[in-house]
Amino acid sequence: MAATDALSAGGLKAGLDALPLLPANRAPLATEYPWPAGQKAAMFLSFDVDAESAWTAKDPARYGELVTMSFGGYEARVGTPKLLQLLRELGLKATFFITGWSVEAHPAMCEAILKDGHEIGHHGFHHVMPQPGDPMLVEEVDRGLETLKRRLGVVPRGYRAPSGEFCEELRVLLKDRGLVYTSSFRDDVRPYRHLLADDTPGLVELPVTACYDDWLLGLSQRYSRHTLLTREQVLSIWTDELEEVRDWGGMVTTVLHPQCSGRPMRLKLLREFLQHTQALKDVWIATGAEIADHFIACEGNAA
Amino acid sequence: MAATDALSAGGLKAGLDALPLLPANRAPLATEYPWPAGQKAAMFLSFDVDAESAWTAKDPARYGELVTMSFGGYEARVGTPKLLQLLRELGLKATFFITGWSVEAHPAMCEAILKDGHEIGHHGFHHVMPQPGDPMLVEEVDRGLETLKRRLGVVPRGYRAPSGEFCEELRVLLKDRGLVYTSSFRDDVRPYRHLLADDTPGLVELPVTACYDDWLLGLSQRYSRHTLLTREQVLSIWTDELEEVRDWGGMVTTVLHPQCSGRPMRLKLLREFLQHTQALKDVWIATGAEIADHFIACEGNAA
Amino acid sequence: MAATDALSAGGLKAGLDALPLLPANRAPLATEYPWPAGQKAAMFLSFDVDAESAWTAKDPARYGELVTMSFGGYEARVGTPKLLQLLRELGLKATFFITGWSVEAHPAMCEAILKDGHEIGHHGFHHVMPQPGDPMLVEEVDRGLETLKRRLGVVPRGYRAPSGEFCEELRVLLKDRGLVYTSSFRDDVRPYRHLLADDTPGLVELPVTACYDDWLLGLSQRYSRHTLLTREQVLSIWTDELEEVRDWGGMVTTVLHPQCSGRPMRLKLLREFLQHTQALKDVWIATGAEIADHFIACEGNAA
Amino acid sequence: MAATDALSAGGLKAGLDALPLLPANRAPLATEYPWPAGQKAAMFLSFDVDAESAWTAKDPARYGELVTMSFGGYEARVGTPKLLQLLRELGLKATFFITGWSVEAHPAMCEAILKDGHEIGHHGFHHVMPQPGDPMLVEEVDRGLETLKRRLGVVPRGYRAPSGEFCEELRVLLKDRGLVYTSSFRDDVRPYRHLLADDTPGLVELPVTACYDDWLLGLSQRYSRHTLLTREQVLSIWTDELEEVRDWGGMVTTVLHPQCSGRPMRLKLLREFLQHTQALKDVWIATGAEIADHFIACEGNAA
Repeated sequence: MAATDALSAGGLKAGLDALPLLPANRAPLATEYPWPAGQKAAMFLSFDVDAESAWTAKDPARYGELVTMSFGGYEARVGTPKLLQLLRELGLKATFFITGWSVEAHPAMCEAILKDGHEIGHHGFHHVMPQPGDPMLVEEVDRGLETLKRRLGVVPRGYRAPSGEFCEELRVLLKDRGLVYTSSFRDDVRPYRHLLADDTPGLVELPVTACYDDWLLGLSQRYSRHTLLTREQVLSIWTDELEEVRDWGGMVTTVLHPQCSGRPMRLKLLREFLQHTQALKDVWIATGAEIADHFIACEGNAA
Repeated sequence: MAATDALSAGGLKAGLDALPLLPANRAPLATEYPWPAGQKAAMFLSFDVDAESAWTAKDPARYGELVTMSFGGYEARVGTPKLLQLLRELGLKATFFITGWSVEAHPAMCEAILKDGHEIGHHGFHHVMPQPGDPMLVEEVDRGLETLKRRLGVVPRGYRAPSGEFCEELRVLLKDRGLVYTSSFRDDVRPYRHLLADDTPGLVELPVTACYDDWLLGLSQRYSRHTLLTREQVLSIWTDELEEVRDWGGMVTTVLHPQCSGRPMRLKLLREFLQHTQALKDVWIATGAEIADHFIACEGNAA
Repeated sequence: MAATDALSAGGLKAGLDALPLLPANRAPLATEYPWPAGQKAAMFLSFDVDAESAWTAKDPARYGELVTMSFGGYEARVGTPKLLQLLRELGLKATFFITGWSVEAHPAMCEAILKDGHEIGHHGFHHVMPQPGDPMLVEEVDRGLETLKRRLGVVPRGYRAPSGEFCEELRVLLKDRGLVYTSSFRDDVRPYRHLLADDTPGLVELPVTACYDDWLLGLSQRYSRHTLLTREQVLSIWTDELEEVRDWGGMVTTVLHPQCSGRPMRLKLLREFLQHTQALKDVWIATGAEIADHFIACEGNAA
Repeated sequence: MAATDALSAGGLKAGLDALPLLPANRAPLATEYPWPAGQKAAMFLSFDVDAESAWTAKDPARYGELVTMSFGGYEARVGTPKLLQLLRELGLKATFFITGWSVEAHPAMCEAILKDGHEIGHHGFHHVMPQPGDPMLVEEVDRGLETLKRRLGVVPRGYRAPSGEFCEELRVLLKDRGLVYTSSFRDDVRPYRHLLADDTPGLVELPVTACYDDWLLGLSQRYSRHTLLTREQVLSIWTDELEEVRDWGGMVTTVLHPQCSGRPMRLKLLREFLQHTQALKDVWIATGAEIADHFIACEGNAA
């Protein structure tokens, strides 16, 4: 993208002068399709399974720092099994976006997710943040796809950007590789279809809800800049967001990590929140594939 | 300003020795004029509309980082429309300080603000923080003025400094360009008139109330250093500040951003706070132009 | 101090090897003298008046950044007058540690403090943090002394370290200049007498209570790394600390800044906290000079 | 470890390519042995006694910064004595991991811990964070051992990593020196036995519970990035974690520091939390040696 190159050369003023006078995301607003079967809103229940790759992506030498690694390793030893048990108890299916490295290093954990009938999505291989011009973009996507297929027999339909960044090159690449939806952007409360720079349609977006990212609520690690929130605080935040989105007829997307939400105190509040949401009776708790399929069907009916 | 140059040359001690022994802001305290029609206090209800320019101002290459951009893009897709709807429901008029870039990139969003009868203020073009000696100061102001005029037919009366910084050169420039008031300083709870370095009067200041800056309450972005506050916490802070200022007979100024306060959980609490304030019956909720006009009229009567 | 020089030369291991195997502060524990007249504990009510010098100390060029300056300027325009009014209403005397620069730049504010009968203490001239080997140490102390004397006629008895750091050289200097007490260290809940490196007695210390430093509770500025605490949270913290210290028979020391605690929402909670403390009837709310004098008298009686 | 060296040479992609596709910690899950005498869960009550060494470990020149030092010095003057008194009142024994430097500089404090019958563990000498390839690893361990033996007559059985990092070299070293357990990793809620890189068994691990690290709850120091949590917030977090772990039949490990939890407001909440835990009647509050011995006995019975 020539425009982007111009933005980083020649100093601040030259870069600002080169900025397009256009929205960075030119996708039009999607039609407000109704949710299935009388539901007022939807919750895309999803987890990001990074394990140690959350910590090695920026500095692989940290692999030798065994306590830092143990934050990630908690996922395989405790966090994911406990979350799977919770989902079984509540009768819920979720989407787990898993890095290829985690599949290679912790195959039993991933097989257990698959065996319980949850959807498995693509989350890169080494959890490298996808940035414009990054030479690892293609390898991250293709090695992730190859690993999910070889180790789990899975051809993923959904993708979540590791560390939550994106670029045009990646939008094109994911479409080319046959992915159906992404869940990475923060600019809507409804599904919409991406519009690529060449004006062709891209993947379906199931936008992320920032306040449901447990990494931002403390407890993720000792170096976190965030102070720990209590259960009462998190539940206040989560129910407020859900209640308002329900009034709007929109959707929320959780971005939970077994190394955070699999910790005892966090799992306790997640249980309470999911039970609360189920008791509402009119919020459709669904996987990404289910929501994307519904959106695509609505698109088709409308066409 | 020769004094300022001396402050940054020659090391710390030389800089400290060169510091004037005078307040940085030499404006005298303003008379405590009464508020209109028996009101005990005033609330300047204002929003800063930055969209993507909040993120590109320091590094335009981020325009290609599509998730970071999507925090800003939320304003046009969801945040601003939802806030406009809330203001209609409550029968309130507010001031929206909009960057020129946002007007160019999101004209429909800005036209909707204008159509609803809200005041539109100046907020720079690229959201570049105005610092002493910055070579972009004049261009930021003039290109912003030109854009508001050409795209919206607006000649703004008020200005809010992007990223909340200011300098003498800007005070002079805004006066020269005919602006009437700014809302950027943090040193008072009443309107006052600036005094320029040449001892002539400057614009009217409607001081900002830091605790009403939603950017500081978490949720603005995943890189925020602030942990998310709950609705109960924000309402406690906001009502405490309002209650005390009301006893003092002063004013508060909100600094809300559609990419924060347009989020579902934040809009929910803003609705509650505005309804609470309206129910007090003696707080004048007004635009910047209304408050500045009132202050200027009082000045005139007193002269 | 030769030992200290060795600590910073020759790399980490050499520095660690050179560390003395001794407490950094060798002052013995003080006798637990009773508080006057049946009081169970003491509260040293003190304020640090930095104004703009809180912001220029590390980078004087910021003097031209007028919004940053306005955080400090709030002290003279609003914060200090409002706090003085509160203290009058409650019938309390406090100690105000004032930088020399603030006296020069805001003489009326400082004269009002003096006129109300509060104690005025030394807080440096430019608010430069006193660090070992700093060439400005002597000038900061002497210029502060000279300014307090010339502008206010005050010979201060107490000193609080700007930005809360200290070194042996400063302990010696303050003793030489005739200061009686400091209130800067964080290692006790009772007054004690410093022991200098040459084994002679130093000043009396009235230790600071970190949780009463309002700079750490948010609201100090937009760049603060701290998220804003609510009134309920601050009161919980402040009353917990006071209650436990009261059981211990110790003292607490507030470190409040008019640019924080003079803000409406913070003044509101300070009023509530001081009224609560007064209602306890057995906490001696006093100035630093009063507490130091009491300690010195007890020392004398015990000798 | 040749693999680790490869990770830090040749740029990001080369490092990522060299990452083993294996868990960083290959220890198998331990059997879920029952706790003694009908207890449902265990609490390993432990403190880290760093004193000034918490601050000098990275920069020994800070030894001359006397206020920074005074945060650490609080341990000897007030924090540890008050905590010992609390433990006596509650009839509890705990483990204190003490740096060798603290033993040398504050022998009376350490003798008092020993005299009260608490377990003393190894916490390095200078509190240097153990990182892969660090040339001080051996000296830190051996000088710590020598100091505990010479000054206190203690041969420690347990070790906690200063600043909470670890590496393979250290696992081997501690086994070689005869240590029995460590309490440093964050990847489980039960004791387990380490598996070394050469496939031989290592020490027993008593995993740390991050939310019980008082350093992360604010109050540790003025430079802390964490905002202060109230007693109500900390108790909510601590009881949630304990309650869920109790349902799981696991263990929690406190990581408390006398310079934090020995502060009045923190000691108050610790008293309340320990009384609450004691009242449960089915949580085994124990030292590290007791829990490690129990685990080893279970291992033996199972073999």
